[in-house]
Amino acid sequence: MDVKIGMSASYKKSFGDKEVAIFADISADNNPIHLDEEYAAQSIFRKRVVHGVLVASMFSKIFGTILPGEGGIYLSLSLKFMKPVYIDQVITATVTLLEFDTNRNRGLFKTVCTNDLDELVLVGEAQILFPDAA
Amino acid sequence: MDVKIGMSASYKKSFGDKEVAIFADISADNNPIHLDEEYAAQSIFRKRVVHGVLVASMFSKIFGTILPGEGGIYLSLSLKFMKPVYIDQVITATVTLLEFDTNRNRGLFKTVCTNDLDELVLVGEAQILFPDAA
Repeated sequence: MDVKIGMSASYKKSFGDKEVAIFADISADNNPIHLDEEYAAQSIFRKRVVHGVLVASMFSKIFGTILPGEGGIYLSLSLKFMKPVYIDQVITATVTLLEFDTNRNRGLFKTVCTNDLDELVLVGEAQILFPDAA
Repeated sequence: MDVKIGMSASYKKSFGDKEVAIFADISADNNPIHLDEEYAAQSIFRKRVVHGVLVASMFSKIFGTILPGEGGIYLSLSLKFMKPVYIDQVITATVTLLEFDTNRNRGLFKTVCTNDLDELVLVGEAQILFPDAA
């Protein structure tokens, strides 16, 4: 791979009822803000929201399968949740390479998710160990 | 809730084949390091590992259902992956309250996961908005 500062990859998806219910099940995080429409209507969010960690999985998808791709390994990450992500809302995750340490074969990425109104919903950074071939 | 610095909660579980396959499906993160035994055997990990973000869901489970519990909202988090988490390995996640801002009703927690050998596998911090009643 030809590593260049500023290189970037995006991935777009929405999380539906099914994904949120399945994630609540495998994570045991059955917080009603994700699952119970009536409870959510009374909350500050007004509607059910997707688990923040499930939204963050869009970055793992990019790092593990697109950029740097197969063999890419998460070393660390930070995430700031700016706005709720609602069920079925289309989210775009984008990662952009900020720094690359050739000796240690690792990159620092900016990680951003935006919603269908182009609002920032999630921002952070991630350190990724690149595959040997990089 | 009587908020006290140093208050803590833990949760223990393992992630099996099934959870990892399901998470790979809903996150679309089908990196072979999680799914392909032969591929993993050739990697630096030697065995298949659980998605880091799935391990991190143990903290959401605690924050959303135990401490502070229902109504707790993730504002930000940082995570450092120290060691791989293998399929079926029993992991203990612990959160400990480091600071609490009474005016803004939010707490800063230390977040730690250890494995069955008592090794640190994941360390970080999280800012959590407490439920109104706190």
